[in-house]
Amino acid sequence: MGKSKLRAAILGVTGMVGQQYVRMLENHPWFEVTTLVGSRSAGKLYGEAVEWIDSYEPPARIMNMPVKVAEPESEDVDLVFSSLPTEAAYQLDTKYAARFPTVSDASSYRMEPDVPLLIPEVNPDHLGLLEVQRRKRGWKGSLVTSPNCTATGLVIALKPLHDAYRIRKAVVSTMQALSGAGYPGVPSLRIIDNVIPYIKGEEEKVAAETKKMLGAKSSDAISPDPMGVSVMVHRVATIDGHLESAYIETERPVDVEEAKEVLRDFRGKPQEMKLPTAPERPIIVMEQDDRPQPRLDRMAGSVPGMSTVVGRVRRGLDDHSLRLTLLSHNTIRGAAGNAILIAEMMHELGYLE
Amino acid sequence: MGKSKLRAAILGVTGMVGQQYVRMLENHPWFEVTTLVGSRSAGKLYGEAVEWIDSYEPPARIMNMPVKVAEPESEDVDLVFSSLPTEAAYQLDTKYAARFPTVSDASSYRMEPDVPLLIPEVNPDHLGLLEVQRRKRGWKGSLVTSPNCTATGLVIALKPLHDAYRIRKAVVSTMQALSGAGYPGVPSLRIIDNVIPYIKGEEEKVAAETKKMLGAKSSDAISPDPMGVSVMVHRVATIDGHLESAYIETERPVDVEEAKEVLRDFRGKPQEMKLPTAPERPIIVMEQDDRPQPRLDRMAGSVPGMSTVVGRVRRGLDDHSLRLTLLSHNTIRGAAGNAILIAEMMHELGYLE
Amino acid sequence: MGKSKLRAAILGVTGMVGQQYVRMLENHPWFEVTTLVGSRSAGKLYGEAVEWIDSYEPPARIMNMPVKVAEPESEDVDLVFSSLPTEAAYQLDTKYAARFPTVSDASSYRMEPDVPLLIPEVNPDHLGLLEVQRRKRGWKGSLVTSPNCTATGLVIALKPLHDAYRIRKAVVSTMQALSGAGYPGVPSLRIIDNVIPYIKGEEEKVAAETKKMLGAKSSDAISPDPMGVSVMVHRVATIDGHLESAYIETERPVDVEEAKEVLRDFRGKPQEMKLPTAPERPIIVMEQDDRPQPRLDRMAGSVPGMSTVVGRVRRGLDDHSLRLTLLSHNTIRGAAGNAILIAEMMHELGYLE
Amino acid sequence: MGKSKLRAAILGVTGMVGQQYVRMLENHPWFEVTTLVGSRSAGKLYGEAVEWIDSYEPPARIMNMPVKVAEPESEDVDLVFSSLPTEAAYQLDTKYAARFPTVSDASSYRMEPDVPLLIPEVNPDHLGLLEVQRRKRGWKGSLVTSPNCTATGLVIALKPLHDAYRIRKAVVSTMQALSGAGYPGVPSLRIIDNVIPYIKGEEEKVAAETKKMLGAKSSDAISPDPMGVSVMVHRVATIDGHLESAYIETERPVDVEEAKEVLRDFRGKPQEMKLPTAPERPIIVMEQDDRPQPRLDRMAGSVPGMSTVVGRVRRGLDDHSLRLTLLSHNTIRGAAGNAILIAEMMHELGYLE
Ligand SMILES: NC(=O)c1ccc[n+]([C@@H]2O[C@H](COP(=O)([O-])OP(=O)(O)OC[C@H]3O[C@@H](n4cnc5c(N)ncnc54)[C@H](OP(=O)(O)O)[C@@H]3O)[C@@H](O)[C@H]2O)c1
Ligand SMILES: NC(=O)c1ccc[n+]([C@@H]2O[C@H](COP(=O)([O-])OP(=O)(O)OC[C@H]3O[C@@H](n4cnc5c(N)ncnc54)[C@H](OP(=O)(O)O)[C@@H]3O)[C@@H](O)[C@H]2O)c1
Ligand SMILES: NC(=O)c1ccc[n+]([C@@H]2O[C@H](COP(=O)([O-])OP(=O)(O)OC[C@H]3O[C@@H](n4cnc5c(N)ncnc54)[C@H](OP(=O)(O)O)[C@@H]3O)[C@@H](O)[C@H]2O)c1
Ligand SMILES: NC(=O)c1ccc[n+]([C@@H]2O[C@H](COP(=O)([O-])OP(=O)(O)OC[C@H]3O[C@@H](n4cnc5c(N)ncnc54)[C@H](OP(=O)(O)O)[C@@H]3O)[C@@H](O)[C@H]2O)c1
Repeated sequence: MGKSKLRAAILGVTGMVGQQYVRMLENHPWFEVTTLVGSRSAGKLYGEAVEWIDSYEPPARIMNMPVKVAEPESEDVDLVFSSLPTEAAYQLDTKYAARFPTVSDASSYRMEPDVPLLIPEVNPDHLGLLEVQRRKRGWKGSLVTSPNCTATGLVIALKPLHDAYRIRKAVVSTMQALSGAGYPGVPSLRIIDNVIPYIKGEEEKVAAETKKMLGAKSSDAISPDPMGVSVMVHRVATIDGHLESAYIETERPVDVEEAKEVLRDFRGKPQEMKLPTAPERPIIVMEQDDRPQPRLDRMAGSVPGMSTVVGRVRRGLDDHSLRLTLLSHNTIRGAAGNAILIAEMMHELGYLE
Repeated sequence: MGKSKLRAAILGVTGMVGQQYVRMLENHPWFEVTTLVGSRSAGKLYGEAVEWIDSYEPPARIMNMPVKVAEPESEDVDLVFSSLPTEAAYQLDTKYAARFPTVSDASSYRMEPDVPLLIPEVNPDHLGLLEVQRRKRGWKGSLVTSPNCTATGLVIALKPLHDAYRIRKAVVSTMQALSGAGYPGVPSLRIIDNVIPYIKGEEEKVAAETKKMLGAKSSDAISPDPMGVSVMVHRVATIDGHLESAYIETERPVDVEEAKEVLRDFRGKPQEMKLPTAPERPIIVMEQDDRPQPRLDRMAGSVPGMSTVVGRVRRGLDDHSLRLTLLSHNTIRGAAGNAILIAEMMHELGYLE
Repeated sequence: MGKSKLRAAILGVTGMVGQQYVRMLENHPWFEVTTLVGSRSAGKLYGEAVEWIDSYEPPARIMNMPVKVAEPESEDVDLVFSSLPTEAAYQLDTKYAARFPTVSDASSYRMEPDVPLLIPEVNPDHLGLLEVQRRKRGWKGSLVTSPNCTATGLVIALKPLHDAYRIRKAVVSTMQALSGAGYPGVPSLRIIDNVIPYIKGEEEKVAAETKKMLGAKSSDAISPDPMGVSVMVHRVATIDGHLESAYIETERPVDVEEAKEVLRDFRGKPQEMKLPTAPERPIIVMEQDDRPQPRLDRMAGSVPGMSTVVGRVRRGLDDHSLRLTLLSHNTIRGAAGNAILIAEMMHELGYLE
Repeated sequence: MGKSKLRAAILGVTGMVGQQYVRMLENHPWFEVTTLVGSRSAGKLYGEAVEWIDSYEPPARIMNMPVKVAEPESEDVDLVFSSLPTEAAYQLDTKYAARFPTVSDASSYRMEPDVPLLIPEVNPDHLGLLEVQRRKRGWKGSLVTSPNCTATGLVIALKPLHDAYRIRKAVVSTMQALSGAGYPGVPSLRIIDNVIPYIKGEEEKVAAETKKMLGAKSSDAISPDPMGVSVMVHRVATIDGHLESAYIETERPVDVEEAKEVLRDFRGKPQEMKLPTAPERPIIVMEQDDRPQPRLDRMAGSVPGMSTVVGRVRRGLDDHSLRLTLLSHNTIRGAAGNAILIAEMMHELGYLE
């Protein structure tokens, strides 16, 4: 007799990230969505409440499921995916984590010393922090966080380069998609024929999270990597897909062709473990001059939206520097997809029992 | 008796830059447009030929003027503004320059050792190269070039900072407007819900031109400034106005508030000479977090489109670094307006006789 | 001694329409803005509160003026311009009108039998309803309404054609700009690479208001014109400027060239009275095939944004029909500008004493 | 032994329509692409020549296939799909049709009396014209045309309503996507923050083709339906998917709910014959007020992009009128998909032998 699927709750199920959870968990081999949680949509059927933003049509089963308010103390599931806004997540993520394995996309607890901030291909060992977390908080459940969407694609691209060349400094400039701001998000009057050179709190988060994820894990803490990370963010008129230009300075000299191979060959535990949501290639390297482009490449790869697409890899100002442009789907690899991959890895490693 | 206006020819008068010349030279105190030159539009009246891209309505006088083919050898004017495409400019700019003072927006001769590449506020002394040019080429006329539109705003912002702190490296990422690609330019199918991370030849030009304009002039040559300049360019869905993020490393320590003053206080010869097209403030510093923005700020200043608008000025990763975001109107300060300002300065300094 | 300016309050001063009032009333010969009213912005200076949506920079005098909450009973002005949302206008417009001449852009009272719904060039005689209003409501002040922005341009174009040919039916399809939805308005995620074929309540309003404004005034009421008006509305990704295609059926046969003259020659009381905000030509007819276009033509005319620009005038399916495309600036002629024109006309006709 | 697939040539294979052919014919059960024909791309491999406009990645087999110039006299295939521009199609379509069954998307021969203009669900009987064609032209092959993309969705929606209520007049206004203009198509500078109210020749084509397709076939000719068709076209900033508003007047009274059923229940020969590219529902009726929307609904249905999505079905000005909004994918149902469906029907009916 087969193992029945783990019952999952999605918190913030009507949002931009929530909608990706619904899509990606349909027909999932291990997880089944049984509980939908919202606030203004609570009391309605999902189909009535959700402002569906994509052409994908969600299955009737979910459309006809009611959305409930958050009731962490009385919830009965096996796993919780949280994509609540920061404030609500502050209140609720820990309450759910006290009882259930919880993976959260919110920024609220990402920098807590006992909370893993995970990209499964990059720092799976950081899951070891959960021992510290259990001891410190006495939870039956657990809390693991998925990073800021801009940090995710960046760190995936930096990781193999860091391992090969040891990055001293990364100077990054981003062009972020509108879905990254949630719904209703950016007013159309602000972005037509325009670029907004500011996203509150974003630059600080990306820098801090990058250094934490690339940081070394000692027995009970992560010490952030010492690399310098400068991020300048911008919002542009794209629906999905964050594009980032990165100027990287390294300790060891970089050969461009070798760097491309390093990126191309990058694999992690998810690929070894053949997790359902693991893309064959975490990094896809493109050779055409004018790639990656958001509309063309954001769904690239064997699990659409889970690969970081890198292009324009070339030398910087000297042979200890490299330039590259990367694209990451902000609500898939940048949120729901990465969180599902985290849960899959935890599942295989026994963390969800 | 008043001095009659100098008669000016505009080469490439129907293009994106050409249309700005027409607008900015209407009612100019010193110059009068008497000759319109084009290729496919030759033989038609300007009003019939031009694909007007703006809401500004050009004066009937120009609309009813015929466009001619380029005839440098038989032309009869006092001054030539050239905004031809690169190839045509290779052929024609020097032919006009042999007989007339010519200011060109094309890239074709910008890097020639005896051709000044000018931003009047930044390197007016480079006009001295014209002596070398005269000796070398034996021209009656002259050729002065206006820079690449992305380089212009960048160099205006860098100049006062370089003078104050000595810039060692600038790592720049751009979000360039569609008018920068001329007409018809970028196909709409390529830019809706998209960003294009490549503009052929742009990165190299911006770097080389920046170093030339900030370079030191010896008696008969310019030696490019040794600063490192890395540029990563992108095309976004804006009509006008190039936005650029710059990470600057300096030799002397930088104080942010002082840096803003340095930028705010920047004035050059055009401001001293009160040239007609000189903006009161070559650099406008904005304090709001989310500025500058292309749609809101590209026409800022006393001569709309001639100021470089700078915002988000803040410390970099250490006290020898600075970050800022700048916006420059690519066809005004970035082309026609800057060229007109060059001609005005040459006029006042006696170069146009 | 000159007459001092009438003191005007603007209700909803931070909104899309409010911002146009601020711009258009700067340096107005007869009116001076003395009171700014808002809700969430109350208590702040205008400059701090307003999310300025345009490149125009409002004068420091207004930027430094505080925004107050609505206090109709204690207000002290001579004239009130209201651009409140429907609900707030229901509550407040009549309270202000009880004491002051009030011109409102809100839909709340437009269809009231004793409230004029005015386009000064079209139905200035409807102002006569104010007698009925005064008798019925006993107000010291008055309430006149400005129409729905989509109805305004349509009715201006239909009026002279109706007078010349007697319109039996108008079948209209619109492409409406984003500013028409206020701020924050339409989420960007909804309109990039998209069209929304619905605006709640719009179709009904445009039809009803068109028939009221073209209706005949008896001594104490307006009987709506019997013409059939079908409106199908759509929201598109433009900032300002509603474009509308109209198929018109008439009782008398229509000659296309004559129809264009009828449109071109259309003048009204505002033009006769040479009111400050009256455009020389209420209707501008364009001959080019591909005009009018929002970005190019929305600010056309001697008072930018006050003219209705009409193009593609041609025969319908028979000689009792006509097709045309019209463009109207929705926050200028469609709201603030039309309201200011109403106030100007009332001023000259003695209604503001 | 199974029937081997028919070998198909695609003329204009690098264009907007050509790219859809490549995608839709991959793994087709009956047809195999063996010949790629272009002009500027001739001599290159498809992968090098094509400016791929979509995120779909074409198969390596096609990417590595060479593009040839058009050589109708020496070609060796079983079936030809032509999506050449009008002028080239004038020259070439008939040359191919002389030897091969040819289905063309070009406008060039659509109105020829002996050339069927086909939507397989609507007027399959018009294929009977091929007898006339064979007699008249003595071709071994044949020519059948697929309609203008704007006419296709319109006629699919009108057909069942015409059969039920007999349409006297249709007043249509369109909002057409950018891919409809081919590549490079509409310059981005023309469509950002804009709408273009004109597409050369479009209005006339849509009207004439609609009347031909809904026309009655006598033994050797089609007499166009007498209904009046007025079309006003506009280009908007969407990538794919033409949206159209239609005001329909009928001879018999229309009940709205019944009309929706008529639309919903519409089936044609392709559905009966279960052709591979036939959508289960040629018309999908949506009940939500704000649908259909291009970005959300253009790929709706069992064969994405082959269904016409209809919404906002409601009464017109009287009970002999109806209003509705329809959406059709212009390069799929509007071109390549419809042409493939034509070929499939011809295949099953024995026309391709
Ligand atoms: N968008 C991205 O690219 C991205 C990427 C990485 C991480 N994230 C993070 O993921 C989270 C969600 O982002 P988003 O873009 O999906 O935001 P969103 O579109 O604004 O959605 C927020 C969701 O949270 C729900 N919600 C709000 N308050 C709630 C409460 N008190 N209890 C229960 N549900 C509540 C909302 O439901 P109701 O409508 O019912 O109120 C809605 O479903 C944020 O923390 C964000 O920072 C986003
Ligand atoms: N756009 C910018 O932001 C910008 C900024 C700085 C510098 N520039 C430079 O300025 C130049 C013009 O740029 P643009 O954007 O205005 O380009 P554009 O819109 O493509 O206009 C090119 C113009 O050159 C004319 N032309 C082409 N070949 C010619 C020939 N053989 N003889 C005479 N006229 C000819 C064209 O006239 P016909 O239509 O009659 O052929 C057209 O008026 C380029 O060199 C560009 O690199 C552009
Ligand atoms: N936009 C158009 O094209 C257009 C055209 C014709 C007519 N109209 C009508 O004009 C009105 C305003 O439209 P809009 O586009 O400007 O809307 P908007 O951008 O949403 O602005 C609404 C304004 O009303 C203020 N407000 C809301 N509730 C208030 C209250 N209780 N007391 C005082 N102020 C209050 C808001 O101030 P706070 O931010 O301080 O809350 C804001 O300044 C609407 O009735 C609309 O239907 C609009
Ligand atoms: N786009 C639509 O929505 C749509 C809908 C229905 C019907 N149509 C019709 O379908 C046709 C194609 O439209 P499109 O949008 O795909 O246009 P497009 O993007 O401009 O593509 C045109 C194609 O034709 C090729 N071509 C041009 N001249 C040729 C020649 N002499 N010999 C061989 N190949 C030649 C081009 O190849 P090279 O690049 O090698 O020159 C290119 O592949 C047009 O007739 C159009 O009216 C289009």
